[in-house]
Amino acid sequence: MRRLRMGMIGGGAGAFIGPVHRIAAELDREIELVAGVFSSDAARSADAAVDYRIAPERAYASLDSMFSQEAARSDGIDFVSIVSPNHHHVQAAQVALAAGLPVFVEKPLTTSLEEAKMLRDLVLSSGLPLGVAYTYSGYPLVREARARILAGELGDIRKVVVEYPQGWLAGDALGKQAEWRVDPARAGLGGCIADIGVHAFHLAEFVTGLRVTRLLADLGTVVPGRLLDDDCSILLRFENGARGVLLASQIETGELNGLRIRVYGDKGGLVWKQEEPNTLTISRNDGSSTSLRAGTSVLSPDAVARTRTPGGHPEGYLEAFANLYRDFAAMLRGESAPLLPDINEGVRGMMFIQTAVTASRENLGWVTVEH
Amino acid sequence: MRRLRMGMIGGGAGAFIGPVHRIAAELDREIELVAGVFSSDAARSADAAVDYRIAPERAYASLDSMFSQEAARSDGIDFVSIVSPNHHHVQAAQVALAAGLPVFVEKPLTTSLEEAKMLRDLVLSSGLPLGVAYTYSGYPLVREARARILAGELGDIRKVVVEYPQGWLAGDALGKQAEWRVDPARAGLGGCIADIGVHAFHLAEFVTGLRVTRLLADLGTVVPGRLLDDDCSILLRFENGARGVLLASQIETGELNGLRIRVYGDKGGLVWKQEEPNTLTISRNDGSSTSLRAGTSVLSPDAVARTRTPGGHPEGYLEAFANLYRDFAAMLRGESAPLLPDINEGVRGMMFIQTAVTASRENLGWVTVEH
Amino acid sequence: MRRLRMGMIGGGAGAFIGPVHRIAAELDREIELVAGVFSSDAARSADAAVDYRIAPERAYASLDSMFSQEAARSDGIDFVSIVSPNHHHVQAAQVALAAGLPVFVEKPLTTSLEEAKMLRDLVLSSGLPLGVAYTYSGYPLVREARARILAGELGDIRKVVVEYPQGWLAGDALGKQAEWRVDPARAGLGGCIADIGVHAFHLAEFVTGLRVTRLLADLGTVVPGRLLDDDCSILLRFENGARGVLLASQIETGELNGLRIRVYGDKGGLVWKQEEPNTLTISRNDGSSTSLRAGTSVLSPDAVARTRTPGGHPEGYLEAFANLYRDFAAMLRGESAPLLPDINEGVRGMMFIQTAVTASRENLGWVTVEH
Amino acid sequence: MRRLRMGMIGGGAGAFIGPVHRIAAELDREIELVAGVFSSDAARSADAAVDYRIAPERAYASLDSMFSQEAARSDGIDFVSIVSPNHHHVQAAQVALAAGLPVFVEKPLTTSLEEAKMLRDLVLSSGLPLGVAYTYSGYPLVREARARILAGELGDIRKVVVEYPQGWLAGDALGKQAEWRVDPARAGLGGCIADIGVHAFHLAEFVTGLRVTRLLADLGTVVPGRLLDDDCSILLRFENGARGVLLASQIETGELNGLRIRVYGDKGGLVWKQEEPNTLTISRNDGSSTSLRAGTSVLSPDAVARTRTPGGHPEGYLEAFANLYRDFAAMLRGESAPLLPDINEGVRGMMFIQTAVTASRENLGWVTVEH
Repeated sequence: MRRLRMGMIGGGAGAFIGPVHRIAAELDREIELVAGVFSSDAARSADAAVDYRIAPERAYASLDSMFSQEAARSDGIDFVSIVSPNHHHVQAAQVALAAGLPVFVEKPLTTSLEEAKMLRDLVLSSGLPLGVAYTYSGYPLVREARARILAGELGDIRKVVVEYPQGWLAGDALGKQAEWRVDPARAGLGGCIADIGVHAFHLAEFVTGLRVTRLLADLGTVVPGRLLDDDCSILLRFENGARGVLLASQIETGELNGLRIRVYGDKGGLVWKQEEPNTLTISRNDGSSTSLRAGTSVLSPDAVARTRTPGGHPEGYLEAFANLYRDFAAMLRGESAPLLPDINEGVRGMMFIQTAVTASRENLGWVTVEH
Repeated sequence: MRRLRMGMIGGGAGAFIGPVHRIAAELDREIELVAGVFSSDAARSADAAVDYRIAPERAYASLDSMFSQEAARSDGIDFVSIVSPNHHHVQAAQVALAAGLPVFVEKPLTTSLEEAKMLRDLVLSSGLPLGVAYTYSGYPLVREARARILAGELGDIRKVVVEYPQGWLAGDALGKQAEWRVDPARAGLGGCIADIGVHAFHLAEFVTGLRVTRLLADLGTVVPGRLLDDDCSILLRFENGARGVLLASQIETGELNGLRIRVYGDKGGLVWKQEEPNTLTISRNDGSSTSLRAGTSVLSPDAVARTRTPGGHPEGYLEAFANLYRDFAAMLRGESAPLLPDINEGVRGMMFIQTAVTASRENLGWVTVEH
Repeated sequence: MRRLRMGMIGGGAGAFIGPVHRIAAELDREIELVAGVFSSDAARSADAAVDYRIAPERAYASLDSMFSQEAARSDGIDFVSIVSPNHHHVQAAQVALAAGLPVFVEKPLTTSLEEAKMLRDLVLSSGLPLGVAYTYSGYPLVREARARILAGELGDIRKVVVEYPQGWLAGDALGKQAEWRVDPARAGLGGCIADIGVHAFHLAEFVTGLRVTRLLADLGTVVPGRLLDDDCSILLRFENGARGVLLASQIETGELNGLRIRVYGDKGGLVWKQEEPNTLTISRNDGSSTSLRAGTSVLSPDAVARTRTPGGHPEGYLEAFANLYRDFAAMLRGESAPLLPDINEGVRGMMFIQTAVTASRENLGWVTVEH
Repeated sequence: MRRLRMGMIGGGAGAFIGPVHRIAAELDREIELVAGVFSSDAARSADAAVDYRIAPERAYASLDSMFSQEAARSDGIDFVSIVSPNHHHVQAAQVALAAGLPVFVEKPLTTSLEEAKMLRDLVLSSGLPLGVAYTYSGYPLVREARARILAGELGDIRKVVVEYPQGWLAGDALGKQAEWRVDPARAGLGGCIADIGVHAFHLAEFVTGLRVTRLLADLGTVVPGRLLDDDCSILLRFENGARGVLLASQIETGELNGLRIRVYGDKGGLVWKQEEPNTLTISRNDGSSTSLRAGTSVLSPDAVARTRTPGGHPEGYLEAFANLYRDFAAMLRGESAPLLPDINEGVRGMMFIQTAVTASRENLGWVTVEH
């Protein structure tokens, strides 16, 4: 079976996330990167083509030229992956859908809920797949956690604590990665909450299979002069009445990328940590806890199928990301991929961001999260 | 120098905390347990005397008999330790102070803020020492953390996350330890918040040297039919503007006694975990973190003086507790023990409990924590 | 029931192990320290009495004076604890036994196997109890490990790896603790192997319930000028044919007191680490492992009885040590304490040391360890 | 720059290591898999081509056909990667070299030292690059460890402990992966020692920059009926006099792939563990230890260049492997890649295996490891 051909939008020099998408997409050899609008500056887009080792003529400087020229080729792109800063997402997705191409897009989906809903209408009317890069849901043990919770292993879920500590925005001097993330014009209405809080939110709903129905948000800006939030504390209620806490911060000095989740039911509790992703631990009140290791026969078939090496050979972020692309490729081939975050999850994330930002800014206390 | 003689109030059969106080008090041989009102039932008090191996005639069934008879002895008690359920604290303390005896008392200080303030007046007018068993502040590495933060090693403090997860009250069937803790008549106005939340609160203020000035409390009752809170999420602000989160729960199935604290400044972050108490870790944004081990020469003299074995020989809860008694003994000998939680810290804890309970019950949002 | 009265031999100023024995012995209030020959220097022995807070007249400067004067008291000592450097053990034990007193003695039992056997004869003919301070066998989870292995939970034992890394003798400048340990006249024929290797050896036999039948020893001296071994690698065979490795070192810079053991059977594997002593982990080949926590209901009754606090309240070295004294006290009261290391285990340790030292020095390859 | 074209030898259906090589080789897009003799069975080789998504006409059933047909193409292969069982390595490498193609080959290099030396002569006379898949030396923090040790951060190296515990061969019923590894005809003279012991050996020499000069080997077969060793204990001496221990086992039930190394010098000690590969810890005798995290600015430039994601985004086995292929690609482009294991390291590994197997079988005690 031939490989699916990907066109990238964004991801030029200095971008962290472009090469990551390239590796993840290609890891299982179901997809290959063949073209891109890596930058709106022609020279920089061409430079990126060299870095990515794709044909120079397929590095474009505008969406229009990519879509028109690729459409004219027999080996043109099959879908696009949008990895540019948030404010570009909606327009790029629109053009791609109009060109009849499926879309894989970075989170957050857009810079506002309104845009997100508009995009949802476009996607639904197009009938085309759209995947959202809630990367952490691609980890095999995150899926194992979900499977076990849905199977009732923890009993009724009562409490969820999801945390996402980072420290890289604790200082003033920021590099290219940071710069646009703290600029409302490019990042949108949320800072930390849109950059990482939304990951934590998706993870909580994904792992538990429960929707958040209410929240109380306390978003703050710690670094002087910053225009967006960089530290978020959010209390949650889930549809079944479970209580929750979501903490996300980018000013916790010394933290790298410490996303982690704990879920407690009346029969057991579970913990998973992104920085040690190959272990999932389930505890009981008798004082015992069981650790399950990635790549081993104790896991459910779906989790096993999402690893590429035997137990004890650590897999990480890139492999988790590749699992999303594998799901996406399956959808493009007409198969089912129910765990891939879709347009609805993308809109859901924007709903979370908008609700939290508004509630915090206006000090509203507990507010409803629309479904 | 002779050992100080302790009388215990409470701590009869089935009590967990009585033997713990006995061990902690005697560990350094500065104190010895010689008498007690272990129960108001004479037979049970006598049984306890056998268990504690103290002279049978010094097991009393009432405060009055203990104080009067001990006062008549040349080797009578030098102070009392109050380890009974919360609703007994204030009366026992009152009588002891009236008898001219210093008091060491379990937390929370009392069952209400009003009682606590009344007790403070008594203590201040008596001029006698009163120590409060915020046990976790006795760990050497907690004191090291405080020393380093006060010395500026983390820079300006911006964020504090303190968590106290337990799971032992997740079920319905409760033993003697649990029973009174969920009964408002004996525990007072708070459940989880008074039993463990107050430890977390003290730890946060102790380690940072900063007072909490405002909070937003969300106290819930998860186990059906329970009358007091068993799950608490509280957002904090400190006097210097630092943001904070305090989480305490007794329904997180599988958690044992997971108190832990993370403090972040603009130069570094620090983490300490009660279940692995002999390590303190300080991280920086360059990707390095330094772990300091109890009992080693890298620590400050005060922390070293609070360990009894060389590095690598784990000490734990009992030794931390013994450090409080060592401080208390120092005070009784007229020395200074500035780190021992005193009556003000006891009142402070009740202020926290009362403020949080009221704010949560009446859904007040952010409220001020009086100083 | 009255407390047993202990006389200490050794443990004067600067000794680490004296206060440790005092705390451990008294922790459960079954024993109290009342007398001692803390030093053969009368002034120093008297100073120690002040530190230990015992009556000044019960600080002796010779064994003879202690035994004669204590025997004359109605409240004289019930047993002695010998904590002096190794070369004093045998004589002190001899005198104590001759005085009709049970003995608790630090490891290694003596400075030579010959002495050890002689002492065994004395003990056996006296009919008096003698306990040996193989402290690590007092940890509750070490006993749990033993119970589970003997119950067959791991299947047939095939492999044992026991390690004891320390770094404190990596340098030249040594304090009082180190000084006598590297002096053959006081330490005996072994350095590292006698100081910590013997702990590892006992732990391996204790946990597995299997005797070592052969060994191949490679003892080295790393620090220039040192006269005794400071780094030991020993290959083992057990009576059932299981293979083993014992590593002990005092020159592994940065290691504190890292004793740990792994035991593998055909059904499962087990690991316990002294520096995190409250967790025992059992793994299976399906990729799952179960951690058991001290103080919880998942453990066997014997292990539960050897903790003093609920799960999550860490206990450590002193509490493990106290468990040995509790066993010893039980023996003195005429009860059974089958897990307490006795004279046979003491001799066994000397057999190990002597066999390994000889085999290594003479480069004998595999040799038999006599039973 | 165009991608280098790889031909694979071995790696057909059921092989674990073939897809791993494919992913690793292609991860950085410097190499692409285009052809292969995946099996000597034509149908199975064709099936593999489908799995790998390469052109069907480039799946060959013999070395000759691949080399001749690829040589005839303008886009023929640039090098071969040999991933078949050990007994195929030498012949495949010979043919490739004869065809003028560089070779990347799995470890162990061959099934005997004699073969290995013969191959070395061929490589040296050909002037072509040959890389050996000592995968673990590709981890960024392994390289960081080496860099820091060579820079003297630990002082003079005194002790090395390298361990490689696995449990997957603890049972009798073995899958395809295991079957050939326990068959002398296909695996060669060593079982566990050749499969994983040689990794540990290379890691020890790589990280320390020191050669092993003597060893004492105790290789055993634990599972009844097995013909090769499955449990190895080896004592080492390094060229500078440092002492060492190498433990490798495949019958340690419950262990997955626990390769780890500890190196101690007179100034510090270091530990790295393959199952948690993104942390490197350096300890000192003052009781402090510093952990360095992958992908952060605290590392040397070379280690940073060997990660693809920022700190806190875990990388693992596949990325480490990709680092070897990146080095190999650099060599093929004429650049220097001094850390890539070459033919000499391959021969060195065979020297280790042969020396240890012989010494153990004939019970020789300490023997010299030829240089």
